[in-house]
Amino acid sequence: MPRFRMTVEYDGSAYVGWQRQENGHSIQAALEQAILSLTSETVVIRGAGRTDSGVHAMGQVIHADLSRAWEPHKLRNALNAHLAMASEQVAVLDVRAVSDEFDARFSALRRHYLYRIITRPARLALEDKRAWWVPKPLDHEAMHAAAQQLVGHHDFTTFRSAHCQAASPVRTLDRLDVTRRDGLIEIRATAQSFLHNQIRSFAGTLKLAGEGKMTPSDVRAALEARDRAACGPVAPPEGLYFMAVDYPGDEPFSG
Amino acid sequence: MPRFRMTVEYDGSAYVGWQRQENGHSIQAALEQAILSLTSETVVIRGAGRTDSGVHAMGQVIHADLSRAWEPHKLRNALNAHLAMASEQVAVLDVRAVSDEFDARFSALRRHYLYRIITRPARLALEDKRAWWVPKPLDHEAMHAAAQQLVGHHDFTTFRSAHCQAASPVRTLDRLDVTRRDGLIEIRATAQSFLHNQIRSFAGTLKLAGEGKMTPSDVRAALEARDRAACGPVAPPEGLYFMAVDYPGDEPFSG
Repeated sequence: MPRFRMTVEYDGSAYVGWQRQENGHSIQAALEQAILSLTSETVVIRGAGRTDSGVHAMGQVIHADLSRAWEPHKLRNALNAHLAMASEQVAVLDVRAVSDEFDARFSALRRHYLYRIITRPARLALEDKRAWWVPKPLDHEAMHAAAQQLVGHHDFTTFRSAHCQAASPVRTLDRLDVTRRDGLIEIRATAQSFLHNQIRSFAGTLKLAGEGKMTPSDVRAALEARDRAACGPVAPPEGLYFMAVDYPGDEPFSG
Repeated sequence: MPRFRMTVEYDGSAYVGWQRQENGHSIQAALEQAILSLTSETVVIRGAGRTDSGVHAMGQVIHADLSRAWEPHKLRNALNAHLAMASEQVAVLDVRAVSDEFDARFSALRRHYLYRIITRPARLALEDKRAWWVPKPLDHEAMHAAAQQLVGHHDFTTFRSAHCQAASPVRTLDRLDVTRRDGLIEIRATAQSFLHNQIRSFAGTLKLAGEGKMTPSDVRAALEARDRAACGPVAPPEGLYFMAVDYPGDEPFSG
């Protein structure tokens, strides 16, 4: 059957998360329903990453096997029309025909995430549910310095959820950069794969660094403790965006 | 009574518009209710501009007279707490004590608006209700050239709603710039005051210029026709943002 790779954007606010679940509507279910409405095929799609409820995506990648060799742009347009009819907060940005060897999850070389923090005294209106609101300024240079302690090949037990199902807590973090533009602080994270809640755990800990409550060496010590209790409070989901995935042959994402 | 000037942000999607109305919830009513909850005072506030349903603001300005000489930052924080409790999509960004001579509407020297268009094949998910989705690319340079025909002191009958209540259709448009960054086209408009639907009428007409359906001289002819029928279709409200107001003594807004 022809296999398609699709890049997907969503506002995760109204969903239980990426993965199909019994207890509510998921982004996976929204896409599978759009495929069913269009093709009358019951398809199980696979995503490159499982995002939690409230987490957004600008570039989640999925694959799906369909019986027909659709022209990619027609498939994209038809799926978007069905998503619009169902009032889903999901859009298919791009569709490509790929070989059977492509697997959205297992072929991924690097995953890129963005975590957005808005620091200002006033609550958020336009950015409500799109960023983590922190009422006081944060020292983004201190956050960046602390973040560099985490880059590299480490046991990230401190920074993963108690519910994380990964066999190993060891990962290689390629990038963890913190930048600021006025009141918007952006944390960019890249790795081949992440543990459950890893980036939100980083963001919560880096916020403490930005408040002057943890030094870079405190963050290093938290990492080396390999103890969940050493992690700062996990940052809320609404600041997190799944930005892109690099696969063999792709231009690496630079965002 | 002490007078306060406040800068207000809102997501206009869920409101009938700025102005208090019988047929639904307005931003004005949300703010007046927050003041009532906080101070037990029934206050009528005045805004610098009346935005329609679906139109957003990053810098609407209002004034309100209260019986107590609040410390401005405490008033800001308390109003935001009441707006949060009422789940309003409204935030008070800034509060200042001002003299009785300040009037949010009549003291305004210049009003600044932004109109956002996103051109891409896929429907909008994260920017749904925050921008005008146009599926095909637009030539922003052609749009900018056409826009320059509208800058200056003119009779804008072509570009105002049939419901516009202004005594005169003559206005001085200081700026109408069109820029593009990837698929995001931004139209920035500045004038002392605007007619009802004027910027959305500009945006709808400039879109035709961006599609090659109107030349700059066609846009000039539409202006000179002084005829509502010469206007392109009015652009939807969700692309429009009320950005800022300049008053005497302010640094002019540069955004």
